[in-house]
Amino acid sequence: MLVVMQSHSTPEQIDRVLAAIRQMGLTPHPMPGATRTAIGITGNTAAIDPRTLEVLPGVLELIRVTKPYKLASREMHADDTVIRLPQGTFGQRHFTIIAGPCSVEDESMIVRTAEWLMARGVRFLRAGAFKPRTSPYAFQGLGLDGLEILRRARERTGIGIVTELMDTESASAVEEVADVIQIGARNMQNFSLLRRAARAPRPILLKRGMAATLEEWLMSAEYLLSGGNRDVILCERGVRTFSDHSRNTLDLSVIPPAKALSHLPILVDPSHGTGRRDYVGPMALAALAAGADGLLIEVHPDPDHALSDGAQSLDFDRFERLLAQLESLAGPLRRVVPSPAGNLPSLTSPESGRCTDRH
Amino acid sequence: MLVVMQSHSTPEQIDRVLAAIRQMGLTPHPMPGATRTAIGITGNTAAIDPRTLEVLPGVLELIRVTKPYKLASREMHADDTVIRLPQGTFGQRHFTIIAGPCSVEDESMIVRTAEWLMARGVRFLRAGAFKPRTSPYAFQGLGLDGLEILRRARERTGIGIVTELMDTESASAVEEVADVIQIGARNMQNFSLLRRAARAPRPILLKRGMAATLEEWLMSAEYLLSGGNRDVILCERGVRTFSDHSRNTLDLSVIPPAKALSHLPILVDPSHGTGRRDYVGPMALAALAAGADGLLIEVHPDPDHALSDGAQSLDFDRFERLLAQLESLAGPLRRVVPSPAGNLPSLTSPESGRCTDRH
Amino acid sequence: MLVVMQSHSTPEQIDRVLAAIRQMGLTPHPMPGATRTAIGITGNTAAIDPRTLEVLPGVLELIRVTKPYKLASREMHADDTVIRLPQGTFGQRHFTIIAGPCSVEDESMIVRTAEWLMARGVRFLRAGAFKPRTSPYAFQGLGLDGLEILRRARERTGIGIVTELMDTESASAVEEVADVIQIGARNMQNFSLLRRAARAPRPILLKRGMAATLEEWLMSAEYLLSGGNRDVILCERGVRTFSDHSRNTLDLSVIPPAKALSHLPILVDPSHGTGRRDYVGPMALAALAAGADGLLIEVHPDPDHALSDGAQSLDFDRFERLLAQLESLAGPLRRVVPSPAGNLPSLTSPESGRCTDRH
Amino acid sequence: MLVVMQSHSTPEQIDRVLAAIRQMGLTPHPMPGATRTAIGITGNTAAIDPRTLEVLPGVLELIRVTKPYKLASREMHADDTVIRLPQGTFGQRHFTIIAGPCSVEDESMIVRTAEWLMARGVRFLRAGAFKPRTSPYAFQGLGLDGLEILRRARERTGIGIVTELMDTESASAVEEVADVIQIGARNMQNFSLLRRAARAPRPILLKRGMAATLEEWLMSAEYLLSGGNRDVILCERGVRTFSDHSRNTLDLSVIPPAKALSHLPILVDPSHGTGRRDYVGPMALAALAAGADGLLIEVHPDPDHALSDGAQSLDFDRFERLLAQLESLAGPLRRVVPSPAGNLPSLTSPESGRCTDRH
Repeated sequence: MLVVMQSHSTPEQIDRVLAAIRQMGLTPHPMPGATRTAIGITGNTAAIDPRTLEVLPGVLELIRVTKPYKLASREMHADDTVIRLPQGTFGQRHFTIIAGPCSVEDESMIVRTAEWLMARGVRFLRAGAFKPRTSPYAFQGLGLDGLEILRRARERTGIGIVTELMDTESASAVEEVADVIQIGARNMQNFSLLRRAARAPRPILLKRGMAATLEEWLMSAEYLLSGGNRDVILCERGVRTFSDHSRNTLDLSVIPPAKALSHLPILVDPSHGTGRRDYVGPMALAALAAGADGLLIEVHPDPDHALSDGAQSLDFDRFERLLAQLESLAGPLRRVVPSPAGNLPSLTSPESGRCTDRH
Repeated sequence: MLVVMQSHSTPEQIDRVLAAIRQMGLTPHPMPGATRTAIGITGNTAAIDPRTLEVLPGVLELIRVTKPYKLASREMHADDTVIRLPQGTFGQRHFTIIAGPCSVEDESMIVRTAEWLMARGVRFLRAGAFKPRTSPYAFQGLGLDGLEILRRARERTGIGIVTELMDTESASAVEEVADVIQIGARNMQNFSLLRRAARAPRPILLKRGMAATLEEWLMSAEYLLSGGNRDVILCERGVRTFSDHSRNTLDLSVIPPAKALSHLPILVDPSHGTGRRDYVGPMALAALAAGADGLLIEVHPDPDHALSDGAQSLDFDRFERLLAQLESLAGPLRRVVPSPAGNLPSLTSPESGRCTDRH
Repeated sequence: MLVVMQSHSTPEQIDRVLAAIRQMGLTPHPMPGATRTAIGITGNTAAIDPRTLEVLPGVLELIRVTKPYKLASREMHADDTVIRLPQGTFGQRHFTIIAGPCSVEDESMIVRTAEWLMARGVRFLRAGAFKPRTSPYAFQGLGLDGLEILRRARERTGIGIVTELMDTESASAVEEVADVIQIGARNMQNFSLLRRAARAPRPILLKRGMAATLEEWLMSAEYLLSGGNRDVILCERGVRTFSDHSRNTLDLSVIPPAKALSHLPILVDPSHGTGRRDYVGPMALAALAAGADGLLIEVHPDPDHALSDGAQSLDFDRFERLLAQLESLAGPLRRVVPSPAGNLPSLTSPESGRCTDRH
Repeated sequence: MLVVMQSHSTPEQIDRVLAAIRQMGLTPHPMPGATRTAIGITGNTAAIDPRTLEVLPGVLELIRVTKPYKLASREMHADDTVIRLPQGTFGQRHFTIIAGPCSVEDESMIVRTAEWLMARGVRFLRAGAFKPRTSPYAFQGLGLDGLEILRRARERTGIGIVTELMDTESASAVEEVADVIQIGARNMQNFSLLRRAARAPRPILLKRGMAATLEEWLMSAEYLLSGGNRDVILCERGVRTFSDHSRNTLDLSVIPPAKALSHLPILVDPSHGTGRRDYVGPMALAALAAGADGLLIEVHPDPDHALSDGAQSLDFDRFERLLAQLESLAGPLRRVVPSPAGNLPSLTSPESGRCTDRH
């Protein structure tokens, strides 16, 4: 941490700041300069509120240096986190795809989708049983009935289930069915929910909040990690800006710094990010090229009659074409994408990084 | 709702859109123009996802007309909502102030603050027992012990308690102690929490999310209203923008449109909005001038040693000066602010609007 | 400036950074800490690009400390700048109003507006002869004919003219007519224009760019100040955010930090800031309460038939009511607003600050 | 255009709106609905200010339907614009790269860079002679001397020159040297400059403003197109948001809608978009995958000693690796990237679209 004094600050003001720092149990390092004095602070600064020093007389500003997250940081954990599930792997050279409808509508469409996906080598199904909706009058999901449908689809096809957890009440029910639990963008800073999810015996897919900085996002991951759940997958899904040409502004530029600052795998959701099926394909390809570890993508057998988000869902034909395009780029980018070969993709080279063998 | 066709759209494309609209049980109104056709839609359009039509061939864009909120709208409810509690009133010509520390630290500071506030005529105390914190390592509040402290402060001084509800587990405990329940900005779209709060027998102070549009904010109010709780107070607390001169960008400009579109009272939180105590006073005065119905403001007996948010808290001296300034502006603006007279402020003219006499 | 090393940085990496700093002619101050080393830098750091150090191996980040503006800063110039013109004063306790139509439409409406304003004590007329318009097909202003109309209005009524300068070609013509030259938001970083305006013998009203930070805004003021023009008036007019309830997001919260960091007077334009005449009044009152030094406001004899921006213009009746409201708040806020007394407002106490007597 | 009336609007209010529309020479189409009336408007609505109707009594809101740009729109011009220059082509299946240092520093580094680029098949050099800088104290470019250096590099190597035009004064000098004239982000709405550039006999590279919507960007293109210059190349370079992990937020998601709404080629500048050389490569690959028509990218022989923007510049080695990666993706994406073969890339299939053969 660094305190920058005003150019006209008096020796008394500087002394008061030095004393305040010592009173916090920290060590001040005054650096007199040509026009002003700056004071470095060493010690455990995580516990203090930097703005307390900022309002002392003579202080121009206070600059935080240490990143507040630890377990999520690359500095503490140099190797990539790799999360292995029976259906597939998140991290390393895998480009893993989670596809399916926005919400569980009925059993036949879920099973049909799951079978179609498995046949193409896509081994994770996304579908919401509990749906966060802006309007209280909109379809809110089938709830427990939806979970039951997902459970049966899993039994019949072996597909991995990714579904959203909206509250602590339904946590046990969700973690029984889900192979990966999704925390939605609106709940990224629902800390009670994060604390509960930290105790779930399942990997967590943590979507970025609509106005979350990378640091805040990693801090929410830190809630999960410090609560005992080491299997966290980040998911960029678009942020809110002035731009009005798409539903949200899909921030692919967060991928390189997220990879530099953290060891966690990161997926991209081009469906919510753009809000229009015509724009999903190019953004999915761009996510792969930018270094993402996979996609969360809306696919629906009949998007024009979907109960929610049909406009941003791909039908099977479009999705199949996209899979082919992804495959054509994966080789040059040294990534492995799902293929209909029926076998799980495997990497010939030995994998590095922490690996969790689930189930 | 209005469908705008592309200028080169074919009659067949137009017919397909007309059919799709009829299939939804709605009535299309084609309007051929010089360069293109637009199609008005009447009927109950709330249930459909507009983007479904938007991706049909030949459609340029789809424009929603009806506001999706009803109970929160001025159109449905022309008169201002007025919420009367024994300690004071929200709405109409009252400018009601809720003051206190960010978090409950111990009983003596809470009681001392409550007594000081009551002596100045400020009859609502804010203080968090449960604190949403970005970092898992930061002070998370005293929890149930904090609630107990608030309960005792209420008993000893008669002050009204405003405190945050973070999850459904603690809802019963919070609603027993609180006179007004606060929903924080990060939980504005925690719909499970909103549904629970809708059943609480207490008014809800609903803070605006950091990236929430006015419409989304009113939709979250609609969750509360449609769930049975008619006593909703809005609270602007700063939104997230590129601006870096303050902690958030306090959006006072939302007040006139919120008043035009909705009947709900609206407060302003200049403490979180600015993040620095030097800026709190001017923004509090500006909130009064802009038409807000009151303030939620951080006041602490000893801000330099506060456990959280000390930098944005006023000490008693500064707050007393601010109260005097607010009072000097209230007269010209025809507003009633808290005064140390000991009596509740009362208005001589008969009040209009829906009034809820609580307790 | 402060270089923060990664926690695993090697002594060699630290040495390379120290050498790079010395090679720039600056002095490094290494501060070894528990988990990492930080390196303070003193000397003239204005000339270097901080990001050059940031990409050296082992560097986590580089933090700039010194503010890059000097002449615009409160640190270099403690007293408020006060700009005195025959028609009125900007700065100190004056709340000065510049009113008029968006654009010069014809002579009679300009003269009629000028006479009406002067009769109410508003002694500055705003009206654009050159208009920056998003669309090439929109009315672009009367150009030199518009300037001539403004010149005649000035002669007939004595009112001060505030009009926009859009390019260097028209600079001589504009500075001949204008008492205050306006630089529009879209040109805030048109550095060629700023360099020309710095040589104009007139005060400059510098509007904030739609996405400008406070620092960038003050840097643009620095172009004017360092180029020789000491009479710079800032003008907040709304910034671009995700918010869609008004045309722009009027950022009143910039006023306190602008006053803290700079000595320049600051006006507010509630017309462009909101885009709707219903919202202009509350925001104008809030600007006064927040500490602004005046208003730039659109007033039109017949807004419903204005050639541009009619929807955000007040008619004379509304404006007169607003003036009365402003006056009722000015006393408690210890501000002087224009009054129809016919005399220039004067302050009984001796004024401090740098004063420029123009003309 | 569509006027939406409030649900309680009276027949008289509706009649007044109908009359106002007719008075503008337009045709109103009233659509009575269950809860309110909407009024469609046909005719030439481009000239009117929609907000004029919006403030009439009983009007809830006014919704614009027609896009305000024409010549830039895909609707008016279905085929892609293709711009052919002797050094290369913008548009169609070409992925064209413009590379070089931020600013012209001296002749040897420019010639060295140009020779190196030509040897790799990159046939456009970017370098600023006139530099827009936030600070008046920063290096402002070599000016006319810089142009002369560029002219000589062009003569010696045959490379195409892309350089920025900052003001009308230097327009003749710039257009003599440049093969493509760049308009910078800060000048995207400098309409005097756009009008001048519209008359230049050179293609214009129009960077997106930091807070420009896609519509505003296309409107600025419309200034160029309607002024007579049909050769406009768009360039996305990052927009301003709350995100702080990179210098700007590179908005790759603008590419699909820009391609859908307009026929103009679009490049991406990953250097300004990210501000850090580590992030440039992934974003360049993502731009190609997202459908961009090329790159504007900073390459410098010795980035650590660059006079400006060194931290975001690639050195030759890094750039060479990036070129190889781009080439490996180009095939699957059916794009042609520059190759060191010495021949201009050519396409075997006949090209569609308007083609301009320059020189």
